[in-house]
Amino acid sequence: MAEVLLVGVGAGDPEQLTLQAIRAIERADVFLVIGKDGAAAELETARRDLLSAHRPEPARVVVVPDPARDRDPQDYRQAVLDWHAARAGRLAAAMEGEPDGTVAAILVWGDPALYDSTIRVVGDVAATHPVLRWSVIPAVSSVSALAAAHRTVLNSIGGAVHITTGRRLRQGWPGADIDSVVVMLDPDLACAALDPAGLEIFWGANLGTPGEVLAAGPLADTLPEIRRLRDGVRADRGWVMDVYLLRRV
Amino acid sequence: MAEVLLVGVGAGDPEQLTLQAIRAIERADVFLVIGKDGAAAELETARRDLLSAHRPEPARVVVVPDPARDRDPQDYRQAVLDWHAARAGRLAAAMEGEPDGTVAAILVWGDPALYDSTIRVVGDVAATHPVLRWSVIPAVSSVSALAAAHRTVLNSIGGAVHITTGRRLRQGWPGADIDSVVVMLDPDLACAALDPAGLEIFWGANLGTPGEVLAAGPLADTLPEIRRLRDGVRADRGWVMDVYLLRRV
Ligand SMILES: C[S@@+](CC[C@H](N)C(=O)[O-])C[C@H]1O[C@@H](n2cnc3c(N)ncnc32)[C@H](O)[C@@H]1O
Ligand SMILES: C[S@@+](CC[C@H](N)C(=O)[O-])C[C@H]1O[C@@H](n2cnc3c(N)ncnc32)[C@H](O)[C@@H]1O
Repeated sequence: MAEVLLVGVGAGDPEQLTLQAIRAIERADVFLVIGKDGAAAELETARRDLLSAHRPEPARVVVVPDPARDRDPQDYRQAVLDWHAARAGRLAAAMEGEPDGTVAAILVWGDPALYDSTIRVVGDVAATHPVLRWSVIPAVSSVSALAAAHRTVLNSIGGAVHITTGRRLRQGWPGADIDSVVVMLDPDLACAALDPAGLEIFWGANLGTPGEVLAAGPLADTLPEIRRLRDGVRADRGWVMDVYLLRRV
Repeated sequence: MAEVLLVGVGAGDPEQLTLQAIRAIERADVFLVIGKDGAAAELETARRDLLSAHRPEPARVVVVPDPARDRDPQDYRQAVLDWHAARAGRLAAAMEGEPDGTVAAILVWGDPALYDSTIRVVGDVAATHPVLRWSVIPAVSSVSALAAAHRTVLNSIGGAVHITTGRRLRQGWPGADIDSVVVMLDPDLACAALDPAGLEIFWGANLGTPGEVLAAGPLADTLPEIRRLRDGVRADRGWVMDVYLLRRV
C-alpha cells in the first residue's frame, strides 16, 4: 500500500503555493520527478527551492527517467498515448521499489488539470496497481497568473473563455461566438496569422519568476514588442514559457 | 494615496489559500466587503474564518452595501454594466473615508479572473482615482478544484477547454470542434437539454466545503443522481454552488 500526492505548485511564483501543497510537501517521504521539458533546468531549480523552503531536512528525490518522445509524429494523439504508457511503466517500477506505506509526492507545474500528463500517467499506474491511493492538489494555473498580472478578467460579461493551444490556433479563430481565447503551448505566436482587426492581446512570459515580462494592447501594434521581449527573455534566461489572452474589443 | 489588494481566496477549502493571499490578509488595514449573492451567509462565514485564522487581532471590516440589481433584465450586459458603475461609486466613497496610506483588501471567492465583477469594479474606481494603487492575487478557481476532486485533466490530449455559463449552454453545445466544456453559473443544469449521447459529466457542488458532493459518469445515467444530490445539498446547507465538466468520450 502506498500513496501518491500529485501536488500543483503554481506557475512560477513560490508565494502562489497553497497551504494544502505545503502540507503535502511536508508529509511526503519521497519526491518523484518524472519528465523533463525544454525549461527543465530552471524548473528543476524552482522545485529544489520549494523543497528547501518547506522541508526542514533534505528531501529524498527519485528521478524517473523520461522515455524518448517523438516530437513531430504523424499521429499526435497516439504518440502522446504511447509516451504516457511508457512513463506509467517507469513510474510503476519506481513505486514498486518503495517500502509499504510510503507517501510519494509529484510536484506539478501550474495546475495539474491543464495540459499536463501527470494525472493521466498516475491514473494509468493506479488502474493496474489497485493498492495505490492517489489524490490531486489543485493550484494557481498560468492562466490565472496571467489574468492577475494584467489585472483583467478572462471572460467578457456573460461570455465564454476558450483555452486552447498554439497548434489549434493555427487552424483559425475557434468560433464566431467566442470573444476570449487563452493560448498556451505556443512556441511561435500562432496569433500572428490571425486577422488582428478588433483583437487585443494580454501576453505574459515566465510569469511569477524573476524573468517575468508582460505586454498588452491591440494585437497588430503589440506583436512586434512581444517578439522583442520574447527574444530578450530567451537570450537572458535560456528558456521562455508564455501564455496570452486574445480578446475581441 | 491608498492601496487595494484584490485577494483571491480559492473556491471553498481554506487550505487552498496561497501564501501570497495570506501575506495580503496579514498586511491589510481594512477589509472591504462588497456585494452579496445567494450563498451570502455561508460565504460570509468562510470569509470570517479566513480572517480569524490568519490575523492575530480582530480585523476591521467595512461593508459596502450592494446597489439593487435587476435579476431578469431585457439587456443583460447593460444591466451588469449599470450595476458595476453603481458598485464602483459606493466603493470609491468607502475608500475616500479611509486615511492616507491605507491598505484595503477585498477577498474574492475562487480566482478573481473568472466570472467575478470585482476586478472591473476596482478598475473603474482606479480609472477615476489615479491615487489608488491596486493589484490582483490569483487563486485556485472552482474549475481547478473540480478537476482535482475528480482527479481528471480538463483538456483531452491537445484539445481545447471551453469554460461557459448555464445561460450560454442553453443555446446548445458550443462548437463541433470542442470536446471539453466546463459550465459555471448554472442554476438549472442546462446540460439536461443537450443530446446526452457520447457525453460524460464530472460534477461537483460546494467544493472544498463540508457540504462537498461529487458525481461522475455518462450524462444521461448520472443526471438523476446529480439532481438528487443537488436537492440534498440545498436542503442541508440552504445553498448550492455547482460546476461541471462535460466531455465527449
Ligand atoms: C505543459 S503546459 C502546463 C500548464 C500548467 N499546468 C498550468 O496550469 O499553467 C505549459 C504551458 O503553460 C504555460 N505556462 C506555464 N507556466 C508559465 C509561466 N510561468 N509563464 C507563462 N506561461 C506559462 C505556457 O503556455 C506553457 O507553454
Ligand atoms: C460568480 S462565479 C465565481 C467563480 C469564481 N471566481 C471561481 O474562480 O470559481 C460563481 C460560480 O462559480 C462556481 N463555484 C464557485 N465556488 C464553487 C464551489 N465551491 N463549488 C462548486 N462550484 C463553485 C459555480 O459554478 C458558481 O455558480
